[in-house]
Amino acid sequence: MPPTDPVALTAELVRCPSVTPEEGGALRLLESVLAEAGFECTRVDRNDVPNLYARWGGKDAPRRFGFNGHTDVVPVGDAAAWTHEPFGGEEIDGEIWGRGSVDMKSAVAAFVSAAVDFVHDTPPEDGALILAITGDEEGLCQDGTLALLDWMKETGESMSVCLVGEPTCPETMGEMVKIGRRGSLNAFFTARGKQGHSAYPHKALNPLPAMARLMDRLGSHRLDDGTDHFDPSTLAIVTIDTGNTATNVIPAEARATVNIRFNDLHDGASLIRWLEEEARVVGETFGLEIEVAARVSGEAFLTPPGPLSDLVAGAVEAELGVTPELSTTGGTSDARFVKDHCPVVEFGLVGRGMHAVDERVPVEQVHQLKAVYRRVLEDYFA
Amino acid sequence: MPPTDPVALTAELVRCPSVTPEEGGALRLLESVLAEAGFECTRVDRNDVPNLYARWGGKDAPRRFGFNGHTDVVPVGDAAAWTHEPFGGEEIDGEIWGRGSVDMKSAVAAFVSAAVDFVHDTPPEDGALILAITGDEEGLCQDGTLALLDWMKETGESMSVCLVGEPTCPETMGEMVKIGRRGSLNAFFTARGKQGHSAYPHKALNPLPAMARLMDRLGSHRLDDGTDHFDPSTLAIVTIDTGNTATNVIPAEARATVNIRFNDLHDGASLIRWLEEEARVVGETFGLEIEVAARVSGEAFLTPPGPLSDLVAGAVEAELGVTPELSTTGGTSDARFVKDHCPVVEFGLVGRGMHAVDERVPVEQVHQLKAVYRRVLEDYFA
Ligand SMILES: [Zn+2]
Ligand SMILES: [Zn+2]
Repeated sequence: MPPTDPVALTAELVRCPSVTPEEGGALRLLESVLAEAGFECTRVDRNDVPNLYARWGGKDAPRRFGFNGHTDVVPVGDAAAWTHEPFGGEEIDGEIWGRGSVDMKSAVAAFVSAAVDFVHDTPPEDGALILAITGDEEGLCQDGTLALLDWMKETGESMSVCLVGEPTCPETMGEMVKIGRRGSLNAFFTARGKQGHSAYPHKALNPLPAMARLMDRLGSHRLDDGTDHFDPSTLAIVTIDTGNTATNVIPAEARATVNIRFNDLHDGASLIRWLEEEARVVGETFGLEIEVAARVSGEAFLTPPGPLSDLVAGAVEAELGVTPELSTTGGTSDARFVKDHCPVVEFGLVGRGMHAVDERVPVEQVHQLKAVYRRVLEDYFA
Repeated sequence: MPPTDPVALTAELVRCPSVTPEEGGALRLLESVLAEAGFECTRVDRNDVPNLYARWGGKDAPRRFGFNGHTDVVPVGDAAAWTHEPFGGEEIDGEIWGRGSVDMKSAVAAFVSAAVDFVHDTPPEDGALILAITGDEEGLCQDGTLALLDWMKETGESMSVCLVGEPTCPETMGEMVKIGRRGSLNAFFTARGKQGHSAYPHKALNPLPAMARLMDRLGSHRLDDGTDHFDPSTLAIVTIDTGNTATNVIPAEARATVNIRFNDLHDGASLIRWLEEEARVVGETFGLEIEVAARVSGEAFLTPPGPLSDLVAGAVEAELGVTPELSTTGGTSDARFVKDHCPVVEFGLVGRGMHAVDERVPVEQVHQLKAVYRRVLEDYFA
């Protein structure tokens, strides 16, 4: 068997119009490639979200290496603004063009082709390869990787470790492996007072001085100084709104929203308690009530530097000659779900151009990524 | 000559639909009544705003008593909601109904009839009576009493003292004479930063923490503790707005508006300097610019208790048996313009129902008001 071409597979995947939650033919394509290579494939769809689980080797094998990724893509946006067909998958001057070429069909193609070649060339004894691929990472994410993990739990499937293939490198290939992420929460504040005339503030109860005080306190508070692996947690006041257009009227209500990105010195619940206490204290000072509605998008997590990050960083160094930084920066990914299942790290392409018009991936990076993934498998099962 | 009936004149005036800036026949009616009584009448219209200047006696008389008032009225609002025709001027159960019956056609009728009777019955030697009546006190006010005062200056006309007939009594007739008003200014703040992603606040420049700090400082600042004649100055934050709906975005701009009602310990210019300095200091702290656009609606003014307030308060006490409070509360009136010309105080009806549906004035109050104005004239020229 000749080596599987990750670039051709990337192009084929890009031609599947799999805008969340459309399957678009992407998972069917992968299923056929993987089944052909001896993987046991199961579609784990939930609430119309398509997901594919593929395993090579026994489910009770002592070492079960997992890859996680997604085939869904964000919408094309202004199709007329694209230089080349967004679902064309054309190769032009050494780049594959199209929506999802960077985020993250090329990485899926790279780990699928690496896995197929690996089990053909050097099938591990006592080992299993697991590919958990979802069709909803860009959408609500409730029936994607979560559905795969739920189904695995129910059916006794599991991964010993997992490598998520999201783009992780800011500028140059190989420079960053992600070993965790900060958590994120949004808090929505509503201060309620009593409307009145600006000339007689003592007859009204203006919610704005209280809201200004609260936002000043929250905005001035230093949550922490960061840790060995995390940047300091941050709090951003994202909006304060009242909507009062009359200068002679004191408004009855004011709203504000705060976004917190927090490291593993905090968790969502403790931060919400802190926000509620601040709102209570300030509300009391001004004699009014400030309501807090908060929602945690994801908790902070960390896979501390160790065997798994050493494995991936070592493969990057061997294949690319670059020592990757072990980082926890950036937004959320499905690693936030996988971390409850097994140790997880992330490594993928340079993320530039993802979600934008004219998204395209250098062919060379796809080959490099496949080589790194292949090396990871070899070293893991060595 | 029988006494002029202020109630009939009020009803006639109410029947003139003089919604700002419509003359509606109101000033023409007054001009005919006053000319007939020997007043020299001049229409001092400016930019389509009608105004009437009427003088009895010589323009260089040593004592020139002035009345100021307006015949324009605010719109009817929901005409269907009125129990009686808003421009009907009907007398029902001892009340004259209609828009402007309280604010302030009855007071104009009262001082016109008092003046007409007074110059007929006891014409003052060496004295002049001046009636400066405008058709725009409810609108922009730029071509109303201001136009009359400008014209008077140009033509060598002047008042020694002036009584403005706006409603001044909160609940019962005679309880309040106004000897000044607090000033008012609006300040519009715009804080400009740099948009960015909530996860990377250090790459953005969020204008909201600065705006929250500034508003907290302004809202917490005690401007003064009031004076013998004035309540403490007040500052009301009337709105803070951003309009950002994305919790993962740090906005580029935030706006806020503040309204200050200030006593005569301040003036508009010094307050604006203070606001600008606060904005500068806070902006500097946060490394961004906070722009201030401020507009003074009216400066604070006071006619200190003395001969004029004694004269008016004495007449109220003599006619109504009530000792009026000398107050500086309430919104603005044309007294803010007259005060640059001569000492000015205000006395008029109970203001309840003005600007509302079913505005109506008790006939008894109109007679009482005429009696007070007549007594003021007698005592002034005694
Ligand atoms: Zn992705
Ligand atoms: Zn008025």
